[in-house]
Amino acid sequence: MTNKLPEIHFALPGWVSPFLAAYPEMFPSVEERMKMVVALSLENVRHGLGGPFGAAVFDEEGRIVAPGINLVAQENNAMLHAEMVALMLAQKKLGCYDLSGGGVRRLALYTSTDPCAMCLGALCWSGISRLVCGAKSEDAEAIGFDEGPRHPDWVAQLRARGIDVVLEVCREEAAAVHRRYVAGGGIIYNPADSKAAGP
Amino acid sequence: MTNKLPEIHFALPGWVSPFLAAYPEMFPSVEERMKMVVALSLENVRHGLGGPFGAAVFDEEGRIVAPGINLVAQENNAMLHAEMVALMLAQKKLGCYDLSGGGVRRLALYTSTDPCAMCLGALCWSGISRLVCGAKSEDAEAIGFDEGPRHPDWVAQLRARGIDVVLEVCREEAAAVHRRYVAGGGIIYNPADSKAAGP
Repeated sequence: MTNKLPEIHFALPGWVSPFLAAYPEMFPSVEERMKMVVALSLENVRHGLGGPFGAAVFDEEGRIVAPGINLVAQENNAMLHAEMVALMLAQKKLGCYDLSGGGVRRLALYTSTDPCAMCLGALCWSGISRLVCGAKSEDAEAIGFDEGPRHPDWVAQLRARGIDVVLEVCREEAAAVHRRYVAGGGIIYNPADSKAAGP
Repeated sequence: MTNKLPEIHFALPGWVSPFLAAYPEMFPSVEERMKMVVALSLENVRHGLGGPFGAAVFDEEGRIVAPGINLVAQENNAMLHAEMVALMLAQKKLGCYDLSGGGVRRLALYTSTDPCAMCLGALCWSGISRLVCGAKSEDAEAIGFDEGPRHPDWVAQLRARGIDVVLEVCREEAAAVHRRYVAGGGIIYNPADSKAAGP
């Protein structure tokens, strides 16, 4: 193999910084944090290329450590779900692959939709202490996305690993973004062979 | 949030290109492909920072599309398992988040160890047609790694999605690299809170 090896380089699109700058530094409540994440998913749809999913890592006081949006289509990278992007950027920012910093830091991942099989696994390796979800898997499946080969008791699996789970925060608002995406002709990845990509 | 948003940039370390250049362009058999992947995992251990895992995407004729090694520790990114790196680099090289190119291309992912929950999910979104594994999950678990909240019938789940699965190719050689890693004092990630990171 003599070809030059490719490299990976990606960043959030230019609209994300001004979008976040319009918010206060602190998001005191669970609902305020989720509303921002859902708004992020809507902005991603409005800007055209992204899947209808948003996420963010928050610290215990309610500051954003790192946001994430689905970048699959614009980066041609099927792994860049919103949750993966938020976790990767948070680890980059903190300079550590373990967001708990060896058990001393408690960070939460907020996601606008229940995580797919891949993001569920990533959560377990990330050092996150808490997962807060918006729309249900059924909402994503209703528009043709697949959550993949998740453990059937995925919530219990996370809790057994010491990760708190909170479900259905602002579910309707989050699911409305899915529907808007479909109504606008948004692609459901890999439809040709019915291997639709999850959130 | 007024801080500058981080970006992600990573590449394979400098030793990978000369390592691959020592091989012929084509790997005709399943065993030859797996032996190269296991050798990649061993080189990653010998170079000090990486987990004992290697992977590569191959085309049907046996050419490497993209290699992957575990980059978790050197990149401070818990998602950079060998399989994830190989899939991301293959998608980058082909300029498409669907490695099947809409169903016209059949690529295989070779991995030196059964995939963890995260990599299993990623496989389903990658457009890969075939998964070939070396060491078993039990081998990774024997040295303290965790495969995460995988679906208990993960092989059947892949097959139901049209992905062929071949297990235990050069299993002993692959598992020997795990043992060498542990004997050399290699870290099992997140041991503090018993959330060990998978392959």
